[in-house]
Amino acid sequence: MPTPVTLNRAQVVIDRCLRLARFSEDQDSTRRTFLSPPMHDCHQEIARWMEPLGISFRIDAAGNFHAVYPATKPDAPRLLIGSHLDTVPNAGAYDGVLGVVLAISLLEELQGRRLPFGLEVVGFSEEEGVRFGTPFIGSRALVGTLDEKLLNVCDAQGISVREAIANFGLNPKEIAQAELGRNILGYLEFHIEQGPVLESLNQPLAAVEAIAGQSRLQFAFLGRGNHAGTTPMPLRYDAIAGAAEWISAVERIAQSSPGLVATVGKVEARPGAANVIAGEARLTLDVRHGSDDARLRAVEDLVRQAYEISARRGLSVRENTLLNQPAVALDPFLTGEIEKAILKTGCKPHRMVSGAGHDAMILGKKIPAAMIFLRTPDGISHDPAESVAVEDVERAIQCGLHLLDHLATSPEFTKG
Amino acid sequence: MPTPVTLNRAQVVIDRCLRLARFSEDQDSTRRTFLSPPMHDCHQEIARWMEPLGISFRIDAAGNFHAVYPATKPDAPRLLIGSHLDTVPNAGAYDGVLGVVLAISLLEELQGRRLPFGLEVVGFSEEEGVRFGTPFIGSRALVGTLDEKLLNVCDAQGISVREAIANFGLNPKEIAQAELGRNILGYLEFHIEQGPVLESLNQPLAAVEAIAGQSRLQFAFLGRGNHAGTTPMPLRYDAIAGAAEWISAVERIAQSSPGLVATVGKVEARPGAANVIAGEARLTLDVRHGSDDARLRAVEDLVRQAYEISARRGLSVRENTLLNQPAVALDPFLTGEIEKAILKTGCKPHRMVSGAGHDAMILGKKIPAAMIFLRTPDGISHDPAESVAVEDVERAIQCGLHLLDHLATSPEFTKG
Repeated sequence: MPTPVTLNRAQVVIDRCLRLARFSEDQDSTRRTFLSPPMHDCHQEIARWMEPLGISFRIDAAGNFHAVYPATKPDAPRLLIGSHLDTVPNAGAYDGVLGVVLAISLLEELQGRRLPFGLEVVGFSEEEGVRFGTPFIGSRALVGTLDEKLLNVCDAQGISVREAIANFGLNPKEIAQAELGRNILGYLEFHIEQGPVLESLNQPLAAVEAIAGQSRLQFAFLGRGNHAGTTPMPLRYDAIAGAAEWISAVERIAQSSPGLVATVGKVEARPGAANVIAGEARLTLDVRHGSDDARLRAVEDLVRQAYEISARRGLSVRENTLLNQPAVALDPFLTGEIEKAILKTGCKPHRMVSGAGHDAMILGKKIPAAMIFLRTPDGISHDPAESVAVEDVERAIQCGLHLLDHLATSPEFTKG
Repeated sequence: MPTPVTLNRAQVVIDRCLRLARFSEDQDSTRRTFLSPPMHDCHQEIARWMEPLGISFRIDAAGNFHAVYPATKPDAPRLLIGSHLDTVPNAGAYDGVLGVVLAISLLEELQGRRLPFGLEVVGFSEEEGVRFGTPFIGSRALVGTLDEKLLNVCDAQGISVREAIANFGLNPKEIAQAELGRNILGYLEFHIEQGPVLESLNQPLAAVEAIAGQSRLQFAFLGRGNHAGTTPMPLRYDAIAGAAEWISAVERIAQSSPGLVATVGKVEARPGAANVIAGEARLTLDVRHGSDDARLRAVEDLVRQAYEISARRGLSVRENTLLNQPAVALDPFLTGEIEKAILKTGCKPHRMVSGAGHDAMILGKKIPAAMIFLRTPDGISHDPAESVAVEDVERAIQCGLHLLDHLATSPEFTKG
């Protein structure tokens, strides 16, 4: 029998997410980038919610929020639970934020009960890559890859990461101290799916088994710019027509490869005039898969298709790889425990690969990491219309509590 | 036996074209737009060439250059010969200009011999539409369609056509006097083909039988913007993928319809990011054919294809027609005479439809008009690399002289 659903605590979670959405750099929409002034207010607000629990917080040198709910014993290891507190421009209220607010809700629901491990709420300072063009600055600090090079990257105003840290009132020389110590059991992240899969399956929650690897490439099809009126069809070298044939091939190949997504999201023609046959068409290709082998085979196939189509049409093609990021497997033990916890809430434990990157991907390189996805209505995210159903938030709270109970009694986990 | 080829006079024509290319608004490239200061110098230079012929010139109120080579009798009708003297930015030396310079060469080659009709060299002030976004301002004045509305159109500096005329030292109130009188026999225009057809056929000259009609449309395919990583292929509404399928249909339909050209020259996706499935793709469509029926049937078919493809994919489509310009048939008698003249130069008389608009299209609405195309190396035009072979210019001079001889002895022509 499913656990009875009481929605009060879930509504509190939603209200808190909506409240944090007001801390924004922009007047009428939510934008809270890395170390921006409203991030201070966001931290203070979260700290107020934690006061009744008797828990204080600290901000590490990378701007990450930390608050520890103590274990039964003082030196017990800790499980991190959280997500990121920064947002894209014109953001919704739940991307990232929901994972932090849900973590606090779990501490509240423990009602003072101590576990054999501590629970450390983490609110990462940066995940979206908006301000510095580089994502995951917050979680990189925890795994020790917020290095000198990244500290020197500048934003659009010419302010470096290092200067931004100092301007926020933190000490960039203390970055190394933000790195995770040894007694960390793992990292757990609740996050909205930001896609349509769970909705299409009519499931509220999923256990994420891996973060898909990602390839990003640029292509340029090169033909011959010519007059659209005076050049008969057989004498054309039309870069757009070649690109169009290839875009269809990308779609066809992705559709016939299980688990693969491939996207041409940007296309532009040059000179780009209605009465001129395009001499050049520039496109991007984004390819993702849970298996690196499957992804790299697909990229190879798509590049070969581009060359074949171009050669047949008397065009040439240039391609160049911008990103080749391997898939990250999440922790099998934690993922299995999440499935059991989802089952206990009365739901089918769907298991899936995340097509988007998340902080868990960064932490997963160093510690056991796991993720729970919440169904996202219409798959809408990075938009003020982003939402989450109160019933699904309640299921997530139940799932989190079941999971903590399991882990508390699991010798495999508490031994680390 | 072909007429023996002597290239001196043809080289003079080429040299004169290159000389006029120096009269430019730009320092290192040719740009001579409607009523720009270098157009004065251009007129003066041409006038100098005509001095030995004892011919003076006048500039009409629309800035068109006129010079009349008298007939055997003072009140005889006149044949206009010419083209336009304005250029695009970064222009070649021959587009338009060659037709004016060739006309002068024909007068010179008559060596004082009078014909039963006068020859009026015309150098149109505006054909390209660069300065005011409206083409054919010069030839419109001759057919009486440079109206109040067009006189009030402004350039990028906010100067109206009317003001530009006054600034050039002309009187906009005299525009009506630029209109053609009754004793005009017709209009003859030599022009570079600006396309690859004659080169592909290994023919130097063509008789142009019609100017193709032209349709121009805008299309927007509308889908759903979504995350490229989190949206599985079967759950996508990808506007670019739909647009690509349609671009291939445009190409296929045009390739299978004789005489039809159809071009998607501009395409852009929104939001246009590598990691976002495009919610919108905007495209242009340019369709041309010598037959209006064939063109309109093709447009109808392509619009239907856009709706079918969109419907099948769960997309929607918006289309809107920007231009629907009928084909203009050139004068059959003159075109036939041109074919005979081309034959007399020892060349095969190729007959073709012009895919581009020309002044002859405007004049053809009021008087018999005809065009002769010269082969264009690599089809390159509107580019400093635009060129013409000296041998082809010589053939054009021979063709022009044969044509004038025919017409001088043709009762059908001289009676008007």
